[in-house]
Amino acid sequence: MGPGPINADPRVLRAMSAQLVGQYDPWMTAAMDETQVLYRQVFQTANEQTMLVDGTSRAGIEAALVSLIEPGDRVLVPIFGRFGHLLREIAERCGAEVHVIEVPWGQVFTATAIETAIASVRPKLLAVVHGDTSTTVAQPLDELGAICEREGVLFYTDVTASLAGNTFATDELGLDAVTAGLQKCLGGPSGSSPVTFSPRAASVITARRSVEAGIRSVGDAVSAHPIRSNYFDLAMIFDYWGPQRLNHHTEATTMLYGARECARLLVEEGIDEAVARHALHGGAMLAGLRGLGLEIFGDPAHKMNNVTAVVIPTGIDGDKARGAMLNDFGIEIGTSFGPLHGKVWRIGTMGYNARKDTVLTTLSALEAVLRRSGVAVTGGGGVGAAYEVYQDAGVA
Amino acid sequence: MGPGPINADPRVLRAMSAQLVGQYDPWMTAAMDETQVLYRQVFQTANEQTMLVDGTSRAGIEAALVSLIEPGDRVLVPIFGRFGHLLREIAERCGAEVHVIEVPWGQVFTATAIETAIASVRPKLLAVVHGDTSTTVAQPLDELGAICEREGVLFYTDVTASLAGNTFATDELGLDAVTAGLQKCLGGPSGSSPVTFSPRAASVITARRSVEAGIRSVGDAVSAHPIRSNYFDLAMIFDYWGPQRLNHHTEATTMLYGARECARLLVEEGIDEAVARHALHGGAMLAGLRGLGLEIFGDPAHKMNNVTAVVIPTGIDGDKARGAMLNDFGIEIGTSFGPLHGKVWRIGTMGYNARKDTVLTTLSALEAVLRRSGVAVTGGGGVGAAYEVYQDAGVA
Repeated sequence: MGPGPINADPRVLRAMSAQLVGQYDPWMTAAMDETQVLYRQVFQTANEQTMLVDGTSRAGIEAALVSLIEPGDRVLVPIFGRFGHLLREIAERCGAEVHVIEVPWGQVFTATAIETAIASVRPKLLAVVHGDTSTTVAQPLDELGAICEREGVLFYTDVTASLAGNTFATDELGLDAVTAGLQKCLGGPSGSSPVTFSPRAASVITARRSVEAGIRSVGDAVSAHPIRSNYFDLAMIFDYWGPQRLNHHTEATTMLYGARECARLLVEEGIDEAVARHALHGGAMLAGLRGLGLEIFGDPAHKMNNVTAVVIPTGIDGDKARGAMLNDFGIEIGTSFGPLHGKVWRIGTMGYNARKDTVLTTLSALEAVLRRSGVAVTGGGGVGAAYEVYQDAGVA
Repeated sequence: MGPGPINADPRVLRAMSAQLVGQYDPWMTAAMDETQVLYRQVFQTANEQTMLVDGTSRAGIEAALVSLIEPGDRVLVPIFGRFGHLLREIAERCGAEVHVIEVPWGQVFTATAIETAIASVRPKLLAVVHGDTSTTVAQPLDELGAICEREGVLFYTDVTASLAGNTFATDELGLDAVTAGLQKCLGGPSGSSPVTFSPRAASVITARRSVEAGIRSVGDAVSAHPIRSNYFDLAMIFDYWGPQRLNHHTEATTMLYGARECARLLVEEGIDEAVARHALHGGAMLAGLRGLGLEIFGDPAHKMNNVTAVVIPTGIDGDKARGAMLNDFGIEIGTSFGPLHGKVWRIGTMGYNARKDTVLTTLSALEAVLRRSGVAVTGGGGVGAAYEVYQDAGVA
């Protein structure tokens, strides 16, 4: 019940135990095509360039940034948590001139603040995290697409922590590049990063296209502005996933099976229904934590459905209590980073773990652990408040 | 029965269907430690810095090169097949001044040729593929360690195609950096890259160490020569796998389970025994292909045990015959790249597919397909010759 990675859906794990086939076997290339179709639905986009990057969610981030950014390009990164710092760091390593704006952790930016920064920085790219698990809040993206469109700025977001648990739609938001991971609300393991790129972003990337030396024929493209990475060269990855099927990496077959099953299950459930499920169980957890008398961290108006940060009660050892949750009850809850380290616990309700039984057992266990730590708690206050949420929703 | 990826060992797939645990759960960190111990045995090294890079085998290559190379460094790449071109390309993207020497595909270099090039180029790094599946031959590495040691050159090889199927020992060969993949003789899926670094290589890498901005405390390292990639920053990856457990990517748990099981099975079998198994079944396949009257491509003195290239008989359509193997017999065999495209088929006997039944069924099927393609074949010549190899080895 941490902030991710979380327990995977057993159906995803089962899909991942299927035998491999060769990477150009027609069954395999059909599975790749099908995965693209599924992720277009998950991302809510018509983007042709929708696929997987073979690595964890930060591999997807780096692929997007290194393929879009040329050394010297200006990039604007609004930072409201740990993963904003990560976007800045990766953009800097790509050779970008990075400008940042910051708000205290737990808050988000107004559209006006970002618009003002765009006007002053004139970046090629706006790179902003959607939901930052380190603080549990999500940056509203709904006005930013129009601003970027008007100013000729590429608009990129990372939705690893938010996708499928919170309202999100790539094309409606006017996004040019989106990256994700499986290990949060998608209910899979870390190790595959679904990504999507608008035609505008794809044209920036394919303008830098080269065909790899070992498979190059006379007349094939060699870029004057090559992408600094081979592994993350999205122009090559487009050629591998596209009808050309130009050899690049060897697709991570088992991870593809997992990513495909995550999307299949999500589309089967319905994306709106999955978001509603996260809202329900996240809401029950939130009510339960408050019912235990705990203080919630972060701007409640922008809290993600799938993760809640609670202030560790004064006078108790937060890591010792987390240890008791894990060792005595078999339930993991998270700590946080940077300014929040040792100050909050983060409790997830995401993916396969967004269920009534996990919410109620976590609240029961937490009550017991808090009591043994000497914290005054309302007996049954957590479970009771969560039950009320379920009752109001007609599911208890 | 292609040159990889191949069928995974079912025990590896079963291990990959296990439920996930959190990345700092003591069970998970113990599994990471255990994986390091196992891969030290597989690589035959005492290197502390032995771990997994979360991506396909080329992710391991890029992590090694981008972490060792600073822009402007001279790198020598002896090229004898497609993957030598890949090393060159990746080193160039890292900003290296790359010098290459080449031999025709199917041949290897003498140690003297490499020594002469080192004397003339004075590189920081020698980067050479061990076994190149594109040509099926392996570069002898046994004299190169001493040459590199004497000349103060870092010595790197990629063993993705050769490890566990051919004799190889990291420390005995004097290697500073080695990268691999699971999808060949290790019998797993693509998507995790075992790597190992000597203390000398590790010190080059850790001299460039930075602590990531989002988790940095006052006094933490910030490098003046940062590695150009965050995802492939091995100094950070060392800190994540090491006792500090500094957060970097979210370890790809399911791939870790797979990589660990590949190594566990290999150590259980015995590495020498696994190499002998590849030699036996690769030898039977080679004899069988010759028994069918086919010509073998590449220097036989340096052929890898686990893959054989045969010249496509004149007058037949190589891709059509491969299609018949796949569609009529359910057996995949490979084509090749660059100068060998359309000229040879590549047939693997590796990992879980290095077995008597797979060798004999492949030879039977190939005889049938060749006959229907109008090629004159000796009836039973393939299976008969393979049986003789097995008989001589006392296993038939």
